[in-house]
This record gives sequence, structure tokens and C-alpha cells, in this order.
Amino acid sequence: MPAQIINGKKISEEIKQEIKQQAEALFNETGVVPGLAFILVGDNPASQVYVKMKGKACEELGFYSITLKLPTETSENELIEKIQTLNSDPKIHGILVQLPLPPHIDEQKILQTIDPIKDVDGFHPVNVGKLVIGLDTYLPCTPAGIQELLKRSGINPSGKHVVIVGRSNIVGKPIANILIQKKEWANATVTVCHTGTKDIAYFTKQADILIAAMGNPEFIKGNMIKPGAIVIDVGVNRINDPNSEKGYKLVGDVHFESAYEVAGAITPVPGGVGPMTIAMLMKNTLKAALNQLKARHILN
Amino acid sequence: MPAQIINGKKISEEIKQEIKQQAEALFNETGVVPGLAFILVGDNPASQVYVKMKGKACEELGFYSITLKLPTETSENELIEKIQTLNSDPKIHGILVQLPLPPHIDEQKILQTIDPIKDVDGFHPVNVGKLVIGLDTYLPCTPAGIQELLKRSGINPSGKHVVIVGRSNIVGKPIANILIQKKEWANATVTVCHTGTKDIAYFTKQADILIAAMGNPEFIKGNMIKPGAIVIDVGVNRINDPNSEKGYKLVGDVHFESAYEVAGAITPVPGGVGPMTIAMLMKNTLKAALNQLKARHILN
Repeated sequence: MPAQIINGKKISEEIKQEIKQQAEALFNETGVVPGLAFILVGDNPASQVYVKMKGKACEELGFYSITLKLPTETSENELIEKIQTLNSDPKIHGILVQLPLPPHIDEQKILQTIDPIKDVDGFHPVNVGKLVIGLDTYLPCTPAGIQELLKRSGINPSGKHVVIVGRSNIVGKPIANILIQKKEWANATVTVCHTGTKDIAYFTKQADILIAAMGNPEFIKGNMIKPGAIVIDVGVNRINDPNSEKGYKLVGDVHFESAYEVAGAITPVPGGVGPMTIAMLMKNTLKAALNQLKARHILN
Repeated sequence: MPAQIINGKKISEEIKQEIKQQAEALFNETGVVPGLAFILVGDNPASQVYVKMKGKACEELGFYSITLKLPTETSENELIEKIQTLNSDPKIHGILVQLPLPPHIDEQKILQTIDPIKDVDGFHPVNVGKLVIGLDTYLPCTPAGIQELLKRSGINPSGKHVVIVGRSNIVGKPIANILIQKKEWANATVTVCHTGTKDIAYFTKQADILIAAMGNPEFIKGNMIKPGAIVIDVGVNRINDPNSEKGYKLVGDVHFESAYEVAGAITPVPGGVGPMTIAMLMKNTLKAALNQLKARHILN
């Protein structure tokens, strides 16, 4: 029996509708519209696409958004000043610096300049630490999207063996730390594999829930998956495709065709985790607006 | 062949001698002695013993230390004020609030009051986050002690399967996050088990390195261990012992007698991880002194 397809696009639309209604309620109560600022340094085409998609989501939901497009040669100090201005701008509740940054800019220094209350990406160390400790914070959008995708598909990771392939700061590490928490829709036994793992298939074959997030096109084949397992594919890789008009196609870190025959459920690429990431960014931005209104005693 | 005993007491003495020499060199260069403040609220007997042992280590190493003993009924605000005073005291480089705190005090609020540069326990969210991201920080003392114990025993976790039982903020979570880093003496494939894990033995039997840190006396038996595995026992549990003068004895989370017959190497309780924790506290305090001297431009 082939796998159930987990439709991240559909689920993300439902979530965005919910957030839209919550934002409207907030506006009716306070006159405040959640505001998100994007900072884009340089002309990386993928980054431009991502910022455009996120900006479009803001429009859909009636959020206020601005995009600062800065040239590649922007200095670290100039960028820091821009962020500081946004930190003190009451119309802006969330600040997102699109990564990667040009090599002359210290990424960590920049991420640490963002006021943690406006850190809707959840990348500031203080927010990463809160996540690990189990305190309320902004969960990074992709791992939060994975957890939400499981939840809305009725797949409870509690008591399950979750195997994560990849240890990035953006996906692998935070999803591991989210899913080991003694909380609802978490409480999983978690294994983290990576380039230092000698036999990745040994671990992936044990997974009840397999999360592929290493950025290696179609690495996970069907024969590395336990029959009936849930497969979450976080990868977004361009590979050459002479049959396509653009000359490339997008594939995940999972070889979909073979995995589809073995897995119990699987997320497609595109249309799986990707749209969830954007929905979670909108959720964090609304939450940031609420947090800032509470901090200013406009809301309880 | 019975297991090699990893002598944490001996290794910790070596480390303390090294730190003592480094502290002497610092004193000769700057006239500064590393200073550590302990805060003990209430009269928990175990806490009193721990603070006494840590104070004794300061004496041995020639560190300056003070202990604030506060009554159980100390208010949260009083405690916060004490910490703020220590935050701005230049003779104090490290601040350690002995846990647990009385129930009327919000532990997280207190830990977050400590200036992160003086957070030698490594419990402030910003330091937890830095650890996860892979940035320089103060590693929490027990996990840092485990890593150092492996290193000084020539046991490299790189490429090994490390299974951790327990997900506390003090041991389980940070040691997992330390050992998955793409760094020397880390780079392990890591599995975290806990009370939500259905069959703990299934996982422990796979471990090349097994770290028991769940606070359950003698839970890990020899038949749960892979022959030849390295067993790190973090547990310190009092169990009744009518044959002992005190009426109790200390045991770990591992059943030593049966584990000893199976493991390749094992840490005893006491004399394994415990002394390493204190040595790492001293190391963090020296590092804190260096960091603060650099921040004041007294050192480069």
C-alpha cells in the first residue's frame, strides 16, 4: 500500500486562515496590525524568492510588512544600525534577516542584534536556549512547522522513535530539542544522525518517524525506511532536469518514488514542509505582536 | 574481562592542578584572583554538602570565594537584589545559585538574573543557546565533565552511538547537544531516551557509549549494556543500607556489579562524574575571570 501524502500546502492554508482571524480580532481590540520587516542583503536569487513568498503571506493575512533590500557591500555596522532602528520601531513586531549573509558579515553578531522579542525566526541564542529548557519562546519556523504538520495529521510523536538526519541550527538541532521535551506532541525518543554517522541506514531503518534534513538530494531511499514509517522531507534541492523548461527541478532529501512504496505517510517536495515554514513565521509574528502589546501593557 | 574503571577522582585532581597553575599565571600577570560566589537558600542538607565541596575546591586552587547563606523565607526580590549586587562586583567572576530553590521562588527568573558572563553553571538561556549553536560559552559542569572524562580516557565519541538516558536541563539535554556538535571529542550519533521511551533496553543495548542520567537507582543492569560499551553513570542516589553507619549508601543509575562484568569501561559512584563536575566549575570560573578581564580590556 503506497504512502498517504501529507499535504503541507493544504494544512498551511488552514493555519493561515486561523492566524488571519486572530489578527483581525487583535486589530478590532487594539487597532494594531502585526508588522514584519525583512532584511535582504545582496542578490542571492533563492533568498529573493523566499522573501517574496514570505511577503506575499503577510499580504494574504493583512499583516504590515516592509523589505529592506541592501547591497552586497553593506557593512556589518550599517546592517546593525538598520536592525537597531527596527528594534525600536513600534510598528515592527518581527525582524527577519534572510540568510545566508555575505561572507564579510558575522551572521551570529547580526542575529544577536535582533531584539529577542522581535526574533520571529527563533535564531537568537536566548530563544534557542529557552526552547531547549522548555520555556515559552518563538520556535524556529521549520521545526515548528514539522511538529504542527504531525499534529494536524494526527501523528503523535510521543513514545515514538524519531530519527533526524542532519544537525543544522535551523532544522536538525531545534527539531531534536523540540521533540524530546516532556510536552504534548513531543516526548519522543530522538536520534540525531549526520555526516559523522557511520551507517545512516542502520538508524533510519529504526525510525517510526524519519526527518530528513541534511540537504543531500534524494539521499534517503525506500530501502532505508521501515515499512509504515512517517517520512518528513525537509530538503529542498535543485537538480538538473533537461526535460524541464527551467533546466532544473526541486527534489527533497528523500527519493520520493521508492520511499512512497514503503512509508506509511510522506511529505512531498514541494508542498510539504515548505509552506508550513511560512505559516509558522506568520504565527510567530502574531505572537510577537501580542508579546509586545503585553510588554507595553496595551494587552494583559 | 571486567570493565576498566574510569577514575574521575584522579582525573579531576589532574585538571584542578592545571587550573591552579593557570590561575597562578593569571595572578602573576594581572594581580587578579578568580572569584566565585555561592548562594544557598534554605537548609537542604545535600545542597549544603555540595556548596561546601565546591568552596573547598576554591580554597585548594587559591580562588576567592564567598557563600551567601539565605533563609528559606527569602523573597524572590531579595534574592534578585543579591544577585544584582554580585553582578556588579568586580571581585566576583562567577555566581552559582545552588538548586533547588524553595518553591515560592521562580528558578528560571533567578537564573536569568545572573549576568551571562558570570553564569559559570551555564544555565542562563543565552548560554544554553550558544552551546546548541556551537558558539563559545560556559558548558554546564556535569556534561562538560563527562566530555572531559572521555577525552582524558582516550575515548573519542566521534562516529560512536551515544545513548543518553534522561533529559534534564542539567545533564541529559546539554550532553546531547554537546556530543552532536561537529567538533573534536563530539560528532557522535546521539539518542536521547527518557520516561516517555517505551523500551529503554532496546536503545541502551545499541550504545557504544551509554550515559545514565535519569536519577533512578541502579536502573541500568548489565543485561541492558552492549558488551564492551563505555558506561558513564551520572546518578547519585541515596538508598537504605542497614549495614552502613549512616543507614544509607550512594549508588548510581547503573547497577555497578552487573554492569562491571559487561562494560568495556565504567565510571564508579562516587568517584566518577561527581568530582569532574567540580573541576569543570573551577575551569568555568577561571574562564569567567579571563572573559571579564578581556571585557574590561585588562587582558587581550
